[in-house]
Amino acid sequence: MSIATAVTSLLGIRHPILLAPMDLVADARLTEAVSAAGGLGILGGGYGDEAWLRRELDLLQPTGTRFGVGFITWSLAKNPHLLDLVLERKPAAVMLSFGDPAPFSEKIKKAGSILICQVQSLASAKEALACGADILVAQGTEGGGHGASRGLFSLVPEIVDALDATIPVVAAGGIADGRGLAAALSLGASGVLMGTRFYATQEAAGKDAAKARIQTANGDETLRSIVFDISRRNVWPAPFTGRCLRNAHLDRWYGREVELLRHLDEESGKYANARAAGDFDIAAVIAGECVGLVQDIPTAQEVVERTVRVASAILANGSQRIQLDPD
Amino acid sequence: MSIATAVTSLLGIRHPILLAPMDLVADARLTEAVSAAGGLGILGGGYGDEAWLRRELDLLQPTGTRFGVGFITWSLAKNPHLLDLVLERKPAAVMLSFGDPAPFSEKIKKAGSILICQVQSLASAKEALACGADILVAQGTEGGGHGASRGLFSLVPEIVDALDATIPVVAAGGIADGRGLAAALSLGASGVLMGTRFYATQEAAGKDAAKARIQTANGDETLRSIVFDISRRNVWPAPFTGRCLRNAHLDRWYGREVELLRHLDEESGKYANARAAGDFDIAAVIAGECVGLVQDIPTAQEVVERTVRVASAILANGSQRIQLDPD
Repeated sequence: MSIATAVTSLLGIRHPILLAPMDLVADARLTEAVSAAGGLGILGGGYGDEAWLRRELDLLQPTGTRFGVGFITWSLAKNPHLLDLVLERKPAAVMLSFGDPAPFSEKIKKAGSILICQVQSLASAKEALACGADILVAQGTEGGGHGASRGLFSLVPEIVDALDATIPVVAAGGIADGRGLAAALSLGASGVLMGTRFYATQEAAGKDAAKARIQTANGDETLRSIVFDISRRNVWPAPFTGRCLRNAHLDRWYGREVELLRHLDEESGKYANARAAGDFDIAAVIAGECVGLVQDIPTAQEVVERTVRVASAILANGSQRIQLDPD
Repeated sequence: MSIATAVTSLLGIRHPILLAPMDLVADARLTEAVSAAGGLGILGGGYGDEAWLRRELDLLQPTGTRFGVGFITWSLAKNPHLLDLVLERKPAAVMLSFGDPAPFSEKIKKAGSILICQVQSLASAKEALACGADILVAQGTEGGGHGASRGLFSLVPEIVDALDATIPVVAAGGIADGRGLAAALSLGASGVLMGTRFYATQEAAGKDAAKARIQTANGDETLRSIVFDISRRNVWPAPFTGRCLRNAHLDRWYGREVELLRHLDEESGKYANARAAGDFDIAAVIAGECVGLVQDIPTAQEVVERTVRVASAILANGSQRIQLDPD
């Protein structure tokens, strides 16, 4: 069984399920697993660590897998040659998030890759469309990691209306199961992109302790802030903030960011050590509000299959809700 | 055509569509119109203006309409006799939002009314269930007026899972059309509660200039803040903040709330005058992110009919997405 949408035809995949290109977590292994299951794996190009990128691309290529690569756009702008390095590997798609896609758009499309732009508002959706995006990912504030303030529920249909079916929309942020996929399709999206749900899989390149926290946390236990960016001396442009699980470090500094900056030499050292050691009372586990829907650490294939199975059942049974009037 | 759910049977209504009890805006006329259209009108008891409440209840009662009454729980706690005044009129339901429902729960249920509790988190959902709520409204941060931080998309299924079908869940915040209703049902909800969409109707007790702003604004043009609460000297308990359309006043004071407090004598006077005069460059138009889905000012009946029609079409056609594998 598969679910056919504009996104599955455009990307040549079976299921309208995309892997969020999570920095470091979405490595070659996870990317390959999601693509093999019928979705589209998107490698987490992230901030653009060239050695990491070359290594993961080298691992991916011999598998013959159809894959995408994601970049943080404002970071790619500082190392634009990374795009050439990626395009040589003929990715099915390149996904750009957080920043102006204009300088890269033409090159990506000329290379024969699909341009996926992630947007967080109606305004950025219109900009991405004007830049020649082939697919838009509408990302809600529920999502883990960096994002902005708009909730997914009205963002999706508003962007769908604005695009007027010129290009398909994929929903992201807050989606972890087949209910989310069915709901996204109801809102007019043509697929979903999932991060947190794929983080908590066997294949994801995250520490077991981080996956365990995702598995046990509920959705009330995340916060969107700039605390982890400050702590790792990684300053993002407005309006983007980062959602992660609450922990002792976040609870200590949330709302006291100016004070954190004043102690940054000491705190950033502690933070770097905690990241290296996997101490997630200090280091952030980057995850979204849908952690409350994540109860296990299955394979990526199991995630894709379950999502499709549940969404198909919901889509198939929807008409049973409707009653014709007796009169 | 109607859509049958646990909520329609419990409330004895045709369509799983509830009117948000918007303070002052959801008056007897709008309440009656939504109920007459097959949903459940819920009168905006708000902060508990006794004269207003008596007048609107007097207007409602002779119509024989099935209706609910909504209260801001922490405000009702200051004037608990208002609940007696309401229960004498035998409302089908009483809806409590923002605060501890425990002191009122037993009285409402003994009077034969359905207890609807609006919640914004998994934690508050569990509290409301423990208090004997019959229906939970899961309110996302997208919603207009007061609310909290969680996005609707993962909040609904997480609460549905936590309740384990003991009582039904209604989705609120960010919903303005049949796509939203179909999506809410896909996520496991049994209905929707809409505010902003009903504000922009013929019957709503809002100023035409406010409705016109809702009609023309897009979803990027709202903010959640405490600026309008400060400006009208109406202090709410944490964690609640209020979403409204951006205007000159909000843009001036957002992020500068301490400064606003310093100028409060002058600013609150200006604000009160602007409210009275309908000057919405200063006074807030309280509306949610779904303003971008609101393009007209129809009757409430037209809103209900359209929502059901579009949702039914989506629910009926969902199975066409599913392809059986050739193998």
